[in-house]
Amino acid sequence: MDENLERLDERSLRDIKERIAASPFHTWFGMRLLSVGVGDAQMVVDLDERHLNMQGIIHGGVIATVADTVIGLAVRSRLPAELALRTAHLSVNYLTEVEGGRLLVHGRTLHAGRRICHGEADVVGEGGMLTARASATFVVSPGGDP
Amino acid sequence: MDENLERLDERSLRDIKERIAASPFHTWFGMRLLSVGVGDAQMVVDLDERHLNMQGIIHGGVIATVADTVIGLAVRSRLPAELALRTAHLSVNYLTEVEGGRLLVHGRTLHAGRRICHGEADVVGEGGMLTARASATFVVSPGGDP
Amino acid sequence: MDENLERLDERSLRDIKERIAASPFHTWFGMRLLSVGVGDAQMVVDLDERHLNMQGIIHGGVIATVADTVIGLAVRSRLPAELALRTAHLSVNYLTEVEGGRLLVHGRTLHAGRRICHGEADVVGEGGMLTARASATFVVSPGGDP
Amino acid sequence: MDENLERLDERSLRDIKERIAASPFHTWFGMRLLSVGVGDAQMVVDLDERHLNMQGIIHGGVIATVADTVIGLAVRSRLPAELALRTAHLSVNYLTEVEGGRLLVHGRTLHAGRRICHGEADVVGEGGMLTARASATFVVSPGGDP
Repeated sequence: MDENLERLDERSLRDIKERIAASPFHTWFGMRLLSVGVGDAQMVVDLDERHLNMQGIIHGGVIATVADTVIGLAVRSRLPAELALRTAHLSVNYLTEVEGGRLLVHGRTLHAGRRICHGEADVVGEGGMLTARASATFVVSPGGDP
Repeated sequence: MDENLERLDERSLRDIKERIAASPFHTWFGMRLLSVGVGDAQMVVDLDERHLNMQGIIHGGVIATVADTVIGLAVRSRLPAELALRTAHLSVNYLTEVEGGRLLVHGRTLHAGRRICHGEADVVGEGGMLTARASATFVVSPGGDP
Repeated sequence: MDENLERLDERSLRDIKERIAASPFHTWFGMRLLSVGVGDAQMVVDLDERHLNMQGIIHGGVIATVADTVIGLAVRSRLPAELALRTAHLSVNYLTEVEGGRLLVHGRTLHAGRRICHGEADVVGEGGMLTARASATFVVSPGGDP
Repeated sequence: MDENLERLDERSLRDIKERIAASPFHTWFGMRLLSVGVGDAQMVVDLDERHLNMQGIIHGGVIATVADTVIGLAVRSRLPAELALRTAHLSVNYLTEVEGGRLLVHGRTLHAGRRICHGEADVVGEGGMLTARASATFVVSPGGDP
């Protein structure tokens, strides 16, 4: 990790939590932020009917969405507030099927640079089974998030 | 493409359209099926506030979800009804930002085999701009979709 | 594509061809450049025993290597000479097996931006069969290639 | 991991080591097997001029190749000898640059199923720096490796 990248301060972290709780996207999707900071983030989704595909198992897109979100937050927590992040690539390996219950998603930073960042996520279902592993690449630009 | 794989018949295609129109997932997400058959599928999403991230651009997960869905349908249309598909891997390259309007998603089969299938999708925003390109790998198993 | 990005001039293109013909890596690997320019590139590999895995089919790494190389050259041809490119992510879908003969690899630019570029490649075996499809994401930085 | 999948026995593991030491591909590439078994594998590459691209850093394809190889061996060690593996998808995140020295590659199984397997690899440079992280998806078929 680049040494010149500072951690988000407490106020910025609290801001993120509040913005996620108020965000139409995250509310619609049913994602809640558990923790974020120092390169890591954790979210939870309580699965219901809307998250399942026509075979009755969790839709691959739901897993991709929570993975992208949590990796972005994890990496975001390693960057100064004046820099903005945008997903450039997302890759998801689907390991086992999930039919319901609670989904725990843990994102972490693999590399935080000034031009590009990488992170990955574990998606864990009920009983602690690793359901999916994802990685994402982000492009960094000046200007910060609004 | 394997020669022993038949096309879905008319009835199966009509069934897919009806099941998608009635599916809680697709209704919740705001996806509509335009066409499907012979290895191709097209869907449309009318973007609104819930599809946008906190920077006001379309969430990467929304693009991943429609891509996974449309590639799955495209590949599904190349397989006999008694075989089932499950996403094993999804990869998305995010090319340009989209802030709203209509998203057109076109999926096509790259390879339909008896054990594994591959497909890809173009995600196109207002004005015809290529917003994302995605690819997916599916595992085939006996038993069909319920 | 960004309008402010110029094409490589004739001299730069000729330089690339000469440098590849003289490069220890490309010579060792058995890759030859057929054409490059305006966002596209084509290379060829004449497969022999060293390119095959222990099952007698072409090694996945060989396909990944030629794909990364040809996509990089394709994207490189869309950037001003003073900017440098580095691969940030590579994704390869393996569609069919190849046991020998000539491999034709065609790379093209999907998006050439000032911070990040995307491209993809078709890997085609004897008889015109699409063997693999790959995509790559590159980070752009000032300083140019030596 | 599926319980019905047995470990390779000692003889099979020794066979793999001998076959890799004698394989034209692995010899040409400069890869040596350190260990393999119970879902894990480790290889080493001593980098020289042929492994570097024209910017003097390790070629992305070299990293992709060792990652594909070591993940395949790791997953292979979890499967009965009568089943064969083929790479269906490979994804590589390039984190930091490497200019030479020794590359240590550690692969592990994420999921070993009867139809499909997933694994991932860390690629570590001199000084213990994580240079790349890769994941791969494999299709399983009957027939075994020759």
